[in-house]
Amino acid sequence: MAKMDSSFDAGIAEIEPSHSGLASIQVKLPDGSVREFPRGSTAFDVANSISPRLAAASVVAKIKALHRAASTPAAELDKDVEETAEAEMYVDHDTAVERLVDLHAPLEEDVELQLLRENDAESLKVVRHSAAHVMATAVLELFPETKLGHGPATDAGFFYDFYRPTPFTPDDLKAIEAKMAEVVARDQRFLHEFEDREEAVSKFRDTGDFMKLHFVERFTKPGEMVSLYRNGHFTDFCRGPHVPTTGRVKAFKVLSLAGAYWLGDEKNPQLQRIYGTAFFSQKEMDAHFARLEEMAKRDHRLLGKQLDLFSIQEVAGAGLIFWHPKGAIIRKTMEDWMREECLRRGYSMVYTPHVMRRELWRISGHEGHYAQNMYTPMELDDAEYRLKPMNCPGHILIYKNSPKSYRDLPVRYAELGNVYRYERSGTMHGLLRVRGFTQDDAHIFCTPEQVEDEMAGCVEFAEVVLKTFGFQEFKVELSTWDPKDSKSYDGTAEQWQMATLAIESVLQRKQIPYKTFLGEGAFYGPKIDIKLVDVLGRLWQLSTVQFDFNLPARFDLEYVGEDGERHQPVMVHRALFGSVERFFGVLIEHYAGAFPLWLAPVQIGLVPISERHREYAEKIQQQLQKHGFRVELDGRNEKMNAKIRDFTLQKVPYVLVMGDKEAESNAVSVRARGKGDQGSVGFEEFLTRIQGLLESRSMEL
Amino acid sequence: MAKMDSSFDAGIAEIEPSHSGLASIQVKLPDGSVREFPRGSTAFDVANSISPRLAAASVVAKIKALHRAASTPAAELDKDVEETAEAEMYVDHDTAVERLVDLHAPLEEDVELQLLRENDAESLKVVRHSAAHVMATAVLELFPETKLGHGPATDAGFFYDFYRPTPFTPDDLKAIEAKMAEVVARDQRFLHEFEDREEAVSKFRDTGDFMKLHFVERFTKPGEMVSLYRNGHFTDFCRGPHVPTTGRVKAFKVLSLAGAYWLGDEKNPQLQRIYGTAFFSQKEMDAHFARLEEMAKRDHRLLGKQLDLFSIQEVAGAGLIFWHPKGAIIRKTMEDWMREECLRRGYSMVYTPHVMRRELWRISGHEGHYAQNMYTPMELDDAEYRLKPMNCPGHILIYKNSPKSYRDLPVRYAELGNVYRYERSGTMHGLLRVRGFTQDDAHIFCTPEQVEDEMAGCVEFAEVVLKTFGFQEFKVELSTWDPKDSKSYDGTAEQWQMATLAIESVLQRKQIPYKTFLGEGAFYGPKIDIKLVDVLGRLWQLSTVQFDFNLPARFDLEYVGEDGERHQPVMVHRALFGSVERFFGVLIEHYAGAFPLWLAPVQIGLVPISERHREYAEKIQQQLQKHGFRVELDGRNEKMNAKIRDFTLQKVPYVLVMGDKEAESNAVSVRARGKGDQGSVGFEEFLTRIQGLLESRSMEL
Repeated sequence: MAKMDSSFDAGIAEIEPSHSGLASIQVKLPDGSVREFPRGSTAFDVANSISPRLAAASVVAKIKALHRAASTPAAELDKDVEETAEAEMYVDHDTAVERLVDLHAPLEEDVELQLLRENDAESLKVVRHSAAHVMATAVLELFPETKLGHGPATDAGFFYDFYRPTPFTPDDLKAIEAKMAEVVARDQRFLHEFEDREEAVSKFRDTGDFMKLHFVERFTKPGEMVSLYRNGHFTDFCRGPHVPTTGRVKAFKVLSLAGAYWLGDEKNPQLQRIYGTAFFSQKEMDAHFARLEEMAKRDHRLLGKQLDLFSIQEVAGAGLIFWHPKGAIIRKTMEDWMREECLRRGYSMVYTPHVMRRELWRISGHEGHYAQNMYTPMELDDAEYRLKPMNCPGHILIYKNSPKSYRDLPVRYAELGNVYRYERSGTMHGLLRVRGFTQDDAHIFCTPEQVEDEMAGCVEFAEVVLKTFGFQEFKVELSTWDPKDSKSYDGTAEQWQMATLAIESVLQRKQIPYKTFLGEGAFYGPKIDIKLVDVLGRLWQLSTVQFDFNLPARFDLEYVGEDGERHQPVMVHRALFGSVERFFGVLIEHYAGAFPLWLAPVQIGLVPISERHREYAEKIQQQLQKHGFRVELDGRNEKMNAKIRDFTLQKVPYVLVMGDKEAESNAVSVRARGKGDQGSVGFEEFLTRIQGLLESRSMEL
Repeated sequence: MAKMDSSFDAGIAEIEPSHSGLASIQVKLPDGSVREFPRGSTAFDVANSISPRLAAASVVAKIKALHRAASTPAAELDKDVEETAEAEMYVDHDTAVERLVDLHAPLEEDVELQLLRENDAESLKVVRHSAAHVMATAVLELFPETKLGHGPATDAGFFYDFYRPTPFTPDDLKAIEAKMAEVVARDQRFLHEFEDREEAVSKFRDTGDFMKLHFVERFTKPGEMVSLYRNGHFTDFCRGPHVPTTGRVKAFKVLSLAGAYWLGDEKNPQLQRIYGTAFFSQKEMDAHFARLEEMAKRDHRLLGKQLDLFSIQEVAGAGLIFWHPKGAIIRKTMEDWMREECLRRGYSMVYTPHVMRRELWRISGHEGHYAQNMYTPMELDDAEYRLKPMNCPGHILIYKNSPKSYRDLPVRYAELGNVYRYERSGTMHGLLRVRGFTQDDAHIFCTPEQVEDEMAGCVEFAEVVLKTFGFQEFKVELSTWDPKDSKSYDGTAEQWQMATLAIESVLQRKQIPYKTFLGEGAFYGPKIDIKLVDVLGRLWQLSTVQFDFNLPARFDLEYVGEDGERHQPVMVHRALFGSVERFFGVLIEHYAGAFPLWLAPVQIGLVPISERHREYAEKIQQQLQKHGFRVELDGRNEKMNAKIRDFTLQKVPYVLVMGDKEAESNAVSVRARGKGDQGSVGFEEFLTRIQGLLESRSMEL
């Protein structure tokens, strides 16, 4: 679920009562040292006492009360705003015990203090939030009749919602950006001020600021002080923090305009939301936009169309993928590789139905925990059926079909299982977020003694998958339950603890670095997610290995141990592509559609220079096809260069041009993708070269 | 829909008024000759006039009025009884113009006459119907308090329904069979008699024969005569025909007992249904039961369990197949072969979703013509969705996704598509009749000029499929529409005619013999079905190639022709396995689970004679696995013979035994399935041999 930046523009005064009567406070720095400052000193003062350069470079401070485990109510405010926020927005909340404050905010108690500089995601958010104030300042100066909504930072920048009967024009946006530059040049101080609630309410009522009035009335209580930020003549209801001055918004850009109903309700007035972004420097901003451009060029939806790989058909439904011949041949290559690799590693392939009785989903617990993600039931004359959202219950039924002994374990069932899950309309995104996808799913049933080896085998297999498909870097995350929310999970505290420890032990044994996330585990057990890093440095969640102590209990799974007694096997779920669709989407973007030879839909394009070289080209085609290569011969009555260009646009790895010289010497003139003309090469030599590349699944040509 | 034998035991008198006043009638014989006989002569008289031997060999006669197109109301009676009949029962109705009569029935008008002997399915039905009367005779003699229901012939024999408060015991059944032998030995004449309806009604009322009373009252009208058959003291309400005497029931067997409610209503008394069968001779009956035994041994449901190939799980639903590892590896081998063969033949693989919007099924016409065979709709927030029962609309959407020129055609999309179809509860049968199955489906889009070549290609491909999997013999059927029922079909008469002619032309060009069936075409076009003949001579409907002029019109498909104009492509559907599940079921029965080497789940079983030969066995295992063979090593601490027996029970093609002698000389002692001990062979020699068998997909070991 998307969460909203906590630096939301509606805040309440947070004037802590003095912690003690002393005139000085203790400040603990990240290096562990503790210094004493007069009460009311600021983070800026602290920085300055270390070095004036540090003070100048700092953007904001992060503090935590030294002697209190206090939690402030501030974070709770955000919940109401989430509903109106963009779904893409996501930022971790400040915790109650650790929060960001203005550099110039007086420190009133003993604190741990950390100075955030211009190299930090949190301080970038503060810059962007301040940029939103700068934008609002500019808009009010240019269009004084405008009423303000709210203006938070987002993951990608910031926005501000405005109410104004006249729509902003593109020229208005340019003018706003120019005016913002003026406001920044003024280098106005962001001042944190407090006002009587009644005064603020009456002021916003007088000026017709219905949205600010709403925020103050909703998020503060009578008698409280209202927190305001002022720069120059501009004042906003806001709980900060902000950068010290408008001048610290060093690089920014107004991006676009969108409509949004006030409070998300279409009966309310329509607001104009202006999006912008900001960075620490022009250089960083330029790099950002260059990267966006690169990402757009690699967009798998665009390339999927250009290279005729797949489509999504509105008449058939959202989030459902049609694999066209060229995409399907890549999928077949991926799946063939995966199946053989599974068999080689002692997995058995199985196939299970796509619909199963509702009763089964009740037993599995999916009806209880997962129904909102499932397609609705179908009624047949004898029972209700549901499309499978997961393959586990099917594999379990096969396990249960015959008695198992410890000698049979581990049992490893693998399936390229097509699962269907409900995603809300409008949330689908190409191949990356879909309603129907194919898991390279496997379930391992084993003894407790075998768990670590099996988990280790899965992690090693995942590494091989990612490297084979061209990803060198990945990150491992361990997600477990939130013990405070145990009712949302199946299984006992003991089981969760034991499972989590088993995973940790595997990761430590294999010396794999990992991060732990509480509350992110599946309802049935903890998991390891392996996120790959693509050529643009983006993280993608694909492989997952999940523990399950719950389904074996629900289905009464057992095996007869060496002791002759019945035992419950441990179950491990794992998917390494994760979703074949999603993995393919990531592959398209990673390679920008220029697939390595072994994956390319058309591996070699043949260009006879003229009609009389066609016979030779066909001979070459047959020989290449006999060796299993996917070859396309362009026999059209077109110029050689046009044919080469068309193959190049299709990102075909090799284009072979054939004229008299080549025909006479059984040679081919080779153009390798991205390397240009490689000159004439004997056909046998070329064949040996590409056979080598194919066998090694080389990334290079 | 099951239909019931027309020789049902409730009939009305059929005394035709004399057609003319003449004293003689004309009888036309199958050789075309016409002879004159006195009116009232019988078929037996006619036969006798030709040859006494023919008369003795005849069972029943088939006649057709020579000068009338009369239809008798007799056949209509059956409809009401169908509801109470067993679903398995199916016999063609007599037509009104052609019907069976007793050999001794007087002929009252000019007729065409055919004498049926003991080599004919129709006369076997008559024998079985007479056997039912023999059974009823025996039951009444042994248990006089019994009341009679009805006793028709079925496809596999006959049954008779009895009402009697005391259940029949197995010993009773033996006694009945013995008594039947007595009745047969008496060689009683089956006499056809007529009785006043009122008399019959009062008689059945007096004797408490509530079922006979019901039949007479329901199926005859006041004033009509009632048709009865009598042998010895036994009389039954029946319209025949029968064999001349009980002695003609030469071979019979009482089979089993089952319960059935009177008129199928569970509020009515429960009847005891005794099943039996009868044949022309003991030899034929013995052959029948031997074949049944062989079929039972080959039953794919039994073998599926014994060999752990697949299961159907009640909790998951009826007609849904779970492929266990050993079945799945065969499926994978079948599918891999099919995909490579498709690609080699210029097909492209595609993948399409399993659910699609209802709107799509409306456009395709499935909502109109096929909805009763589809799973019910699922409602998502944005639309209704349905599981696909066919792959065509998905492939069409891919075709439509980009403009096509005549140069792109033929386009051949192939998919191993999982389809789901509703079948009534209780009609499912193992792998042969299921609710979810995998079609090796392809759709060919082509120009009218390409149709014949494409159809020919499909038929040739189908031949290769069947031969590769071990079927040498097959039959081709052309099914087209019933022009009298045109409202049940999409498309115009012109289109149907044109399509049918195109198929016929292909079959004639390829000199393939075929039969034509009117009214059996799909709603969207005519089709060729290729039925294979298995090792027991059974026919199986698997491959199908279907024309479609309808979907291209419904979806506005087009291509730009050489003339620059838009044209509608012709569409051919084809599936060659038909259903992977069904094909696999047939394969299991065809091979009785003893799959050829290339398909066998475990190809080679390894038996080290003792623990000290294990190392050598593992070396052999590794080498075989390196060459891609599926090998199982039995390392248990069991006797050699026990291990060999277990592999033999699993029908493993080769078992290699390894002791000192083999380990010393790098040899293996080979046992080939069905061929026994082949002696010691050098490992390399063995490897070369089995590689050859694998490559050629040999049926032999």
